[in-house]
Amino acid sequence: MTPEKTVARLSLYRRFLKLAKDEGTSNVYSHQLADMVRGTSAQVRRDLMALGCSGSPQKGYDVNELIKHIDEFFNTSEVVDVILVGIGNIGRALLSYFKSGKSHINIVASFDSDRQKVDRVINNSKCYYIEELSKFVSENNIKTAILCVPASEAQQTADVLMHSGIKGILNFAPVRLKLPANIFVEDVDITMNIEKLVYFSSGKRK
Amino acid sequence: MTPEKTVARLSLYRRFLKLAKDEGTSNVYSHQLADMVRGTSAQVRRDLMALGCSGSPQKGYDVNELIKHIDEFFNTSEVVDVILVGIGNIGRALLSYFKSGKSHINIVASFDSDRQKVDRVINNSKCYYIEELSKFVSENNIKTAILCVPASEAQQTADVLMHSGIKGILNFAPVRLKLPANIFVEDVDITMNIEKLVYFSSGKRK
Repeated sequence: MTPEKTVARLSLYRRFLKLAKDEGTSNVYSHQLADMVRGTSAQVRRDLMALGCSGSPQKGYDVNELIKHIDEFFNTSEVVDVILVGIGNIGRALLSYFKSGKSHINIVASFDSDRQKVDRVINNSKCYYIEELSKFVSENNIKTAILCVPASEAQQTADVLMHSGIKGILNFAPVRLKLPANIFVEDVDITMNIEKLVYFSSGKRK
Repeated sequence: MTPEKTVARLSLYRRFLKLAKDEGTSNVYSHQLADMVRGTSAQVRRDLMALGCSGSPQKGYDVNELIKHIDEFFNTSEVVDVILVGIGNIGRALLSYFKSGKSHINIVASFDSDRQKVDRVINNSKCYYIEELSKFVSENNIKTAILCVPASEAQQTADVLMHSGIKGILNFAPVRLKLPANIFVEDVDITMNIEKLVYFSSGKRK
């Protein structure tokens, strides 16, 4: 299986390549992609070699071909159905972000424990009562969830997601979830990010 | 200077310790803190030793003492003034998140290029026109900024922030900023997080 960090880099290469394409660029060099991910040219070449792409020292890589290969790697032609749990500030922001339809991610439903939000359509996505989560996930064969519930509810909700068949969770709750190794968890920990940021920008670094 | 990853772990330890304290726990063991950061006990002990804290094999660490030392490390008694640039979905969510006043982070002002938003108070924070950014930052000696502008405006805005005296940027724009090494940049890249997530939860891992 491709390592996590490689997958992350491939995602970033593709974004760079699409921008380059929009600007009319047809060839890129490994050092340009390396800059994008703050890595080395050798690493870029290894990553792309694994996808069956090789460049030339003179011309570098063909932009269209790289995009095509990375799209295949991510299987982007297929729309992926995702659910979102917890419609607070961050949840609402994400719904709004993904309704643009620019990505292949489709948030098919959202869930909340607040009855006031249930049955409303918030940013194109219908909100269901949290108790319906398990049934919805298994009936619709959903594999991916975005978790934006408060810290106190995160572990319990993650357990329900796992038992319903979810294989990957993007976790915005400021808790480390305890789940079996076959469930992929990606933490987005904004509180920790800000604490780090303040520490390193304070000029009082110890 | 303390390495970035250690700072991140200290932030997570403290969060765990505060929860433990709220639950009435007075002592914790290194392995409990290690679980929290998915690390090892030995690493926890090294991190805490560097702050001058040592535990005992029988009793572990004193929760209150650890919190006190980590608070001192982060200098949390001092409120930190931060600005936010770009009031889109994510910007608005963050303003709402930080107005709670539960952290020592104070978003003193926000900035946008949309005249409709200027002079309005959004979630306790007054919105200024983007052109006033540079003056505000230098006059108020702000060191830390949260960047939530669209990708196309991110580098240009980051340059303005740097020239005005900003030392740390939390970057939500899906671009890798090019800035000198003395400016600390923390990237929060939700698009990349979701692409990774979908890849690892699809069951079609290559």
